[in-house]
Amino acid sequence: MLEKTTRMNYLYDFYHSLLTPKQQNYMSLYYLDDYSLGEIAEEYDVSRQAVYDNIKRTEAMLEEYEAKLLLFQKFQERSILIRQLKELLNEENPSKQALQDVVAELEKLN
Amino acid sequence: MLEKTTRMNYLYDFYHSLLTPKQQNYMSLYYLDDYSLGEIAEEYDVSRQAVYDNIKRTEAMLEEYEAKLLLFQKFQERSILIRQLKELLNEENPSKQALQDVVAELEKLN
Repeated sequence: MLEKTTRMNYLYDFYHSLLTPKQQNYMSLYYLDDYSLGEIAEEYDVSRQAVYDNIKRTEAMLEEYEAKLLLFQKFQERSILIRQLKELLNEENPSKQALQDVVAELEKLN
Repeated sequence: MLEKTTRMNYLYDFYHSLLTPKQQNYMSLYYLDDYSLGEIAEEYDVSRQAVYDNIKRTEAMLEEYEAKLLLFQKFQERSILIRQLKELLNEENPSKQALQDVVAELEKLN
């Protein structure tokens, strides 16, 4: 569940601009502010079921966007390469070739 | 016009997965394969005006996606930083600090 929350937080971060204002409100209360479904329902004066359905649909939309655009996946791949560059640059005498190899990977990914 | 074509090629590259199959077909014939509107109309047995309207709408959609997600802009920003890394690594004795600064920029952008 924690893993799903983390993933949804990331997907929301990447794709929230493609959602409607209502979807954005429900998702950010639920995933970022940790409101319960009941609390969101009360806040917006709708049924708990309506909030639940909206959030489930939005989660599915976020996964569809990710399947099409892969922004989260590419972010993770770039993060690994950036960490490798930082680690190499923390060494006393970093290998130029190793650095160039990682930069070439970053360029391929761009 | 060439500049617009280049931009549309990039936007299509980033966002084509969000378009319908028909939009994808018209756009790729027009922008990638350099068909004329008349040739596309003939190919799909529709009016030239219908093709024109579809392509104009699709162009507007691509610009809306870019305004929301900035994939092309971020790609360009990363390209500049990657080029800087490559140039630094082509020097005889690249400055570690300069490399670390560019990597920090890349990380902020990620």
